[in-house]
Parts: sequence; C-alpha cells; structure tokens
Amino acid sequence: MAELEIRVATEDDVPLILSLIKELAEYERLSHEVVATEESLRHWLFGERPVAEVLIGHHGAEPAGFALFFHSFSTFLGKPGIYLEDLYVRPEFRGAGIGRALLVHLASLARERGCGRLEWSVLDWNEPAIGLYKSVGAAPVDGWTGYRVAGKALEELGGEA
Amino acid sequence: MAELEIRVATEDDVPLILSLIKELAEYERLSHEVVATEESLRHWLFGERPVAEVLIGHHGAEPAGFALFFHSFSTFLGKPGIYLEDLYVRPEFRGAGIGRALLVHLASLARERGCGRLEWSVLDWNEPAIGLYKSVGAAPVDGWTGYRVAGKALEELGGEA
Repeated sequence: MAELEIRVATEDDVPLILSLIKELAEYERLSHEVVATEESLRHWLFGERPVAEVLIGHHGAEPAGFALFFHSFSTFLGKPGIYLEDLYVRPEFRGAGIGRALLVHLASLARERGCGRLEWSVLDWNEPAIGLYKSVGAAPVDGWTGYRVAGKALEELGGEA
Repeated sequence: MAELEIRVATEDDVPLILSLIKELAEYERLSHEVVATEESLRHWLFGERPVAEVLIGHHGAEPAGFALFFHSFSTFLGKPGIYLEDLYVRPEFRGAGIGRALLVHLASLARERGCGRLEWSVLDWNEPAIGLYKSVGAAPVDGWTGYRVAGKALEELGGEA
C-alpha cells in the first residue's frame, strides 16, 4: 500500500495548489467563481506577509489533496482557532484516509499552537464530506447564517468612509 | 448630537473589550460559553503575534460598541478577506449608526488592504442585525453549514498524529 504523507507546501507548489483549487471548485459546481491566479497565490500565501497556510497530502509520490487554512479567533474562548477554508482530495485517491490524515494533522497543529477549535463550512449536499466530518468528532454549528459583502457592494460601502 | 468616532483599540482597552464580549454573549444567550480572560485577550490581541484586531466605536466620550476581526482567505478569489467575528453595539446606543459606521470602516479597510470580501455570521433569530446587514448590501451565503471540532474531541483527534 502506498504511504500517506502530509507536508507543508512551499512556493514551488503554487501551480499544483491552483490546479487543486480549480478541481475543488469544479466538484463544488462553483468553477465560475474562481479568479485566483498563480501570481495572486504566490503573493498572499508565500509573500512578505502570508495570510494562509497550505498542507499537501501525498499518496506515495502522487499529490492527492490539500488543505488551506488560516487562524481565526474566538472571543468567547479568548483564543485563536484554525479555520479550514478548503479541504480537497482528488477523486482517484478518495477512501484512502487522506482527508482524515489532513484533519488529524490540523488538529495536532491546533493543539501545538494553543488553539481552542478547528472549524470550517461544508456545502449541505456534500454527504461524503459530512460523513467524514462526523467521524472525526465534528459537530454542526446550527442556527447561524453567513453573510458577505463583496464586489461592487464592498466598493460602495467602503467608499462611504 | 454626540459625534460618532471609530478608533483602533490598544492594550489599555483590554478590560473594556472583555466587558463588551461578555455583554454580547449575554445578548446572544451564550454567556455560559465565555471563558476569555483579560490575560488571554492581552496575549492574543496585543502580544508578539496578534491574531485579530479590534475597533472601538464611540458615541461622544462613551464607548458604545466594538468590532473584532481577522483576515480570512478566499481560494476562489485568490485574495484575503476580512472576517468579522464580533460586532456589538450597547443597547443604549442602538439606532445611532454605530453598527453601520463600524461596517463602513471595515469595508474601507478591506479596500485599502486588497481584500475581496467582508464576511461574518449571524444568529438566525437576530432580526435587527440581519436588517442592518441587508441595508449595507450584504447577502446571505445559503447552502453551507459550519462544522467545528473543539474541547475533548479536538484533543483526541490531534492525539492521533
């Protein structure tokens, strides 16, 4: 059996990361929303002030999936958390434990860094992902809805300042 | 009419910030979840590596509310966002435009810092807040549910690494 390995991504992984983001968007039926470029990822993930971190999951020599995360903060806990923005495993590597290994790695990082929680969002129709999340002890945060201002509305709102 | 002012919080504001967090938790009927202390806020917000930032809204000389936020990252946009963890206005100052002024300030910061969106979550029963959010051009992000691993489950999951 090929060995699973989780490693920290480097700048050389930017083309791979962009490919994985595009594959994830396709799976989520949201490809039309992807405007990220290698340049923007290089700047924000590996520039002077990185705002997020990336782990790559390998199945033997093959890059099989990735996790992109950043630090959140809980005012109630008075502690940071880890927010998992993307978790993706390529279809041909599903069921091999890579998604779980990425979550275990993140939980371990959360402990090391003094974080009080590991959190993320999932599309309600994504049953395979929800099954994985429940199997690692995650619970849904019911009763809350996300809101967002973006694009032209964000420009306009900011322009009032 | 007393003037509205938005300013960046400093370490001297830690006792005020903790009071405001506790008032918000009471309003959200979640007081039992607050374990933050002045010490933990001082460490994570004003220590060597701050993980979140705080704005204080004043009504004349009175501290009337606050916003606590950190940077998120959108893989689809290839850009950071601003995630608003807490927005709170004290009951006696509601309706004076402080919540809106805090959102405008954040939207302006988002533009300055090259962020693609300003986002947050709201309790589904909080109609006054939802009304404010819609009035500034925010849209609900439907079809997603938050998941979280915390406490003992996080310890156990991380322990598998």
